[in-house]
Amino acid sequence: MMKIISQSEFARVWQTDINSYSKLSLIADMCRLNTLSAVKRAGSGHLGSSFSAMDIVVWLYYREMNVVKVGFDNPHRDIYFSSKGHDVPGLYAVLFSLGIISEELFLKLRCLGGLYGHPDVSNFGIEANSGSLGMGISKGRGMVWAKKHLKLSGRVFVMTGDGEFQEGQNYEALQGAAHLGQSQLTVILDHNKVQSDKPVKEITDLGDLETKFSSFGWHVERCDGNDFRALERTFAKIGRIKHRPKIIIADTIKGKGVSFMEHPYALKEKGTYKWHAGAPDDASYEAAFDELFQNINCKLTQFSLSQLVIKEVCDEEQPAQKKVSDEYVVKAYGKALVELAAERDDFVVLDADLAADCRLRDFEKKFPEKFIEVGIAEQDMVSMAGGLARQGILPIVNSFGAFLASRANEQIYTNTCEKSKIIYVCHYAGLIPAGPGRSHQCLRDISLFGALPDMTIIQPCNTWEIREALDYCVNQSHQSCMLRLNIGPSPRIIELPKEYIFTKGRGAVLTKGDDAILFAYGPVMLYEALLASEILAKERIKLKVVNMPWLNSVDTKWLKEVSAGITKIFVLEDHSPVGGLGDFLLNYLAVKKFGVVGLPACGRPDEVLKFHGLDGATLAARIYWGRE
Amino acid sequence: MMKIISQSEFARVWQTDINSYSKLSLIADMCRLNTLSAVKRAGSGHLGSSFSAMDIVVWLYYREMNVVKVGFDNPHRDIYFSSKGHDVPGLYAVLFSLGIISEELFLKLRCLGGLYGHPDVSNFGIEANSGSLGMGISKGRGMVWAKKHLKLSGRVFVMTGDGEFQEGQNYEALQGAAHLGQSQLTVILDHNKVQSDKPVKEITDLGDLETKFSSFGWHVERCDGNDFRALERTFAKIGRIKHRPKIIIADTIKGKGVSFMEHPYALKEKGTYKWHAGAPDDASYEAAFDELFQNINCKLTQFSLSQLVIKEVCDEEQPAQKKVSDEYVVKAYGKALVELAAERDDFVVLDADLAADCRLRDFEKKFPEKFIEVGIAEQDMVSMAGGLARQGILPIVNSFGAFLASRANEQIYTNTCEKSKIIYVCHYAGLIPAGPGRSHQCLRDISLFGALPDMTIIQPCNTWEIREALDYCVNQSHQSCMLRLNIGPSPRIIELPKEYIFTKGRGAVLTKGDDAILFAYGPVMLYEALLASEILAKERIKLKVVNMPWLNSVDTKWLKEVSAGITKIFVLEDHSPVGGLGDFLLNYLAVKKFGVVGLPACGRPDEVLKFHGLDGATLAARIYWGRE
Repeated sequence: MMKIISQSEFARVWQTDINSYSKLSLIADMCRLNTLSAVKRAGSGHLGSSFSAMDIVVWLYYREMNVVKVGFDNPHRDIYFSSKGHDVPGLYAVLFSLGIISEELFLKLRCLGGLYGHPDVSNFGIEANSGSLGMGISKGRGMVWAKKHLKLSGRVFVMTGDGEFQEGQNYEALQGAAHLGQSQLTVILDHNKVQSDKPVKEITDLGDLETKFSSFGWHVERCDGNDFRALERTFAKIGRIKHRPKIIIADTIKGKGVSFMEHPYALKEKGTYKWHAGAPDDASYEAAFDELFQNINCKLTQFSLSQLVIKEVCDEEQPAQKKVSDEYVVKAYGKALVELAAERDDFVVLDADLAADCRLRDFEKKFPEKFIEVGIAEQDMVSMAGGLARQGILPIVNSFGAFLASRANEQIYTNTCEKSKIIYVCHYAGLIPAGPGRSHQCLRDISLFGALPDMTIIQPCNTWEIREALDYCVNQSHQSCMLRLNIGPSPRIIELPKEYIFTKGRGAVLTKGDDAILFAYGPVMLYEALLASEILAKERIKLKVVNMPWLNSVDTKWLKEVSAGITKIFVLEDHSPVGGLGDFLLNYLAVKKFGVVGLPACGRPDEVLKFHGLDGATLAARIYWGRE
Repeated sequence: MMKIISQSEFARVWQTDINSYSKLSLIADMCRLNTLSAVKRAGSGHLGSSFSAMDIVVWLYYREMNVVKVGFDNPHRDIYFSSKGHDVPGLYAVLFSLGIISEELFLKLRCLGGLYGHPDVSNFGIEANSGSLGMGISKGRGMVWAKKHLKLSGRVFVMTGDGEFQEGQNYEALQGAAHLGQSQLTVILDHNKVQSDKPVKEITDLGDLETKFSSFGWHVERCDGNDFRALERTFAKIGRIKHRPKIIIADTIKGKGVSFMEHPYALKEKGTYKWHAGAPDDASYEAAFDELFQNINCKLTQFSLSQLVIKEVCDEEQPAQKKVSDEYVVKAYGKALVELAAERDDFVVLDADLAADCRLRDFEKKFPEKFIEVGIAEQDMVSMAGGLARQGILPIVNSFGAFLASRANEQIYTNTCEKSKIIYVCHYAGLIPAGPGRSHQCLRDISLFGALPDMTIIQPCNTWEIREALDYCVNQSHQSCMLRLNIGPSPRIIELPKEYIFTKGRGAVLTKGDDAILFAYGPVMLYEALLASEILAKERIKLKVVNMPWLNSVDTKWLKEVSAGITKIFVLEDHSPVGGLGDFLLNYLAVKKFGVVGLPACGRPDEVLKFHGLDGATLAARIYWGRE
């Protein structure tokens, strides 16, 4: 049972004649409560920054902007979007409170056909895609340029994080907007002082932000971003500034509204901030819900208003989730890194503010002298690795594949030109988890690394294989390597044949068969491949499933042997069908590929795999009956 | 006949007992003279910033750094490299003056096996690859980190341009270096106020640089970068600063040393600065040479030293250059853009400080209201285009492919996620010209765009086809498009069959044949393909050459027809063999691919094509006799 506040309650509060600041504060807390429930229901989402930014978002939609009045289709509307994007559950709650998002949709956070985990313009009311950090100011100034060119009125408000200001693109955009005097552009920096799970000051200090932004030619204001009176004063002030873009440094509290989620308290408790991402457990959910609920009611009572009516929403009938294993290849990677440090003294580990997700925390704690935290600055990280390598150090560079392979691509190429050996680890590779949405799903990284000379690309499928793969990259390879890792739990632990030796260009046969052969890699897709083989086995069709961790190397003799006598040859990609293992094997075999066609869907693993025709059952049909 | 100053003359001047500032000034002008001759001999190179930075580079190697003394293999050496990289002819001249680069090598600027057009570590004395702007500070701080970690002494000096500070990565690196207090890192900003051919202030003003860099936590000094006394004072001062990285804003004069190349004079003359890149014509070369020569002699006379001895170097026996046509597809593109503006009012053209090279100047002049100059900030440009597209404008985004496809890759993907229609034009695609070197040669862009959903990639081969292609992109396509353009002259104007209609997925048969078929695209490789067919025709082997401008779309019916009955099927890539047209066609045909394997070579077109086995004669051998 989920508990939410329905739109009628928002309308009731909004129509009262209590003072406007208290009313906005009530609305904001009610939106926080709904955000909490939506994230709990989705099983994931970003509460900390949804809460810190909430008062600003409420201010914008309820008081500052014309968009609710004129409508989202009106070209003269004011535009708001968040560049960081992970605060979008909070934005959805505000849009829901205003009736812009329906209750049905609001309850489908991170579900297929529902609301994306990061902003996506296919959801009504969302003005720009984000989640990949640091692009918002550029996009906003594009909109402002267009409005002026098209003689349209309306201002553009872009929310950013503070850690996000480690991304260099922001400074390109600051310079460009100041150069053009784009005064219709306002940036609001949600300065909650915590990025991911650590203080910004610890990761990469931003220094004196007011002087910094002024030196870029912007008009700067600073205010308490959780105080509606301060917001009113500040927005009024910037409204009078002409000929310059404006930035509001809004000092906020991460987790604002729920005492045990609030920074700095929540940070002190464990040393890292716990409520950045993920859903709260049941007890925390109830405690947070109760606190918000009581605060709201307390305020309502003060104003002699009746108590909040909570609506209980049945849990949607959800298919029983597959029971997954407790194996995470990324966890095994983290462990292998620590073990490796006992053997070799010449490598360092680099991270771009994803140490927890990339399972680097143990290494960081045990070997702080070999760990470099560069903050949210993938380009700087990769070029810095180039500098390290030029001095004889072996850098192991970590980030999500979507960011590392793509944003730092030119830097990776330049390192290649220097013939330096560097290991790039693309975490969160592939389609699953699909909840965070398109900005995070990484389905192009093989293609982005593929045309780099002297680059070996490997995706291991289990704990044993990641250790072998890391050993290969560090101790055996003379080339640079890209390791591709799934981030979620392995649906099933992939059992490799006892006689299997991890050898460049050779895979492992997981099921015997001679009716058809299916090459796959990584635990997510190998699971689906094995499922397909089980389904086909019942039809007395024997599918040979091959784990092929080498995505751009092949031992042609082995390939010939493994596929001998089989004419139906398939490749299952955890990637776009373009530029993956299939395109590579096409140089040797006539292959039919399955991959993520089009943009990746957002949703639960099972529904997203099915949506893309990549679940075991659909694969079985595609393989044997040729159904498309 | 080339005229240079040999190493013995440098030694003679260095050994005199004239005052050290005058001596350094003499050495610098002598290096300028040699730079001038090397660039003239190479036929291309960057004089303006080689000259502005010259005094600083001379100061560093002759006075500041220990590297000449301890040697380039000493791990305790001081390190210098230029992040902008195009000032490398000046650096080569300094290294030559010191005997670090031999005369033989110095005379091979931009030749195969010689000195790269942009810095490459395979040339002795070069510490880092550059040319792709904005990576240097990151790399430098990686080196500083490594030196500290490895307990090595030695400082790191990184030269940057001023326009280069439009690249966001610089600010990532500034923040990171300040956060770690990397005091062994010194950045020298060659502040010559002109980027490419226009003033920095016009392109994207950088504002108050001193305040800006201070706000990033750096120690800032400012001095006259063409005054050795000032350099001495400034370097002494920063030597005493601890715990913070340091930046010297060195005010310099672009083109310094040759009166008619000096900014601001040289800019006033034509409105744009003429001496950024390219070799001077014969008259300008002689005039510049004479001025430098006389200045040097004048100084020598003041100090009662004998006149400068000039060495005349025979021109190497060079193969007669192929006579090329006067067609440039990129020029035709620029013209087509202007014509298009008469038909449609809803597009804008974006540029990242390559307007002259991308032939956008006419458009810029005629339609300033539809032209957006974003400066050297590809990420900002692409995300800004995303914002424009969200407001209903069709953006046409221009840069060199090496920068656009790679540095802004994540931004392009995000725009794709918004399903906005945007046209990306990757200029300077392919292997030729090969003089500028690896940072500029673009051989991965098809692979970088290939896995993007809903993206049509086209490379036209002549003036007619670029107009058709642009029309397709703008007026017919519902998807985003990437246009790939060769920048140099077409070796021969590719004649297309009269009956050829530019149709999605269909190419044009250029020569009839049924012994083998060769698909190619773009004027450079089609020329080699046609050459191969002529060579084979003499052997009575009929090669069907097909122009296939559609790099990721195919009409399978047409493909079947065109290749019917032919078993030897080849694709000639102006790209890496991975992720190009060949990999795409492999999905439909069993194809053998020719492409640029490994890193692209630097040199003259003919020698580089041959080096990669992509010239007509080698192709003929590879096609028919299977020679590899």
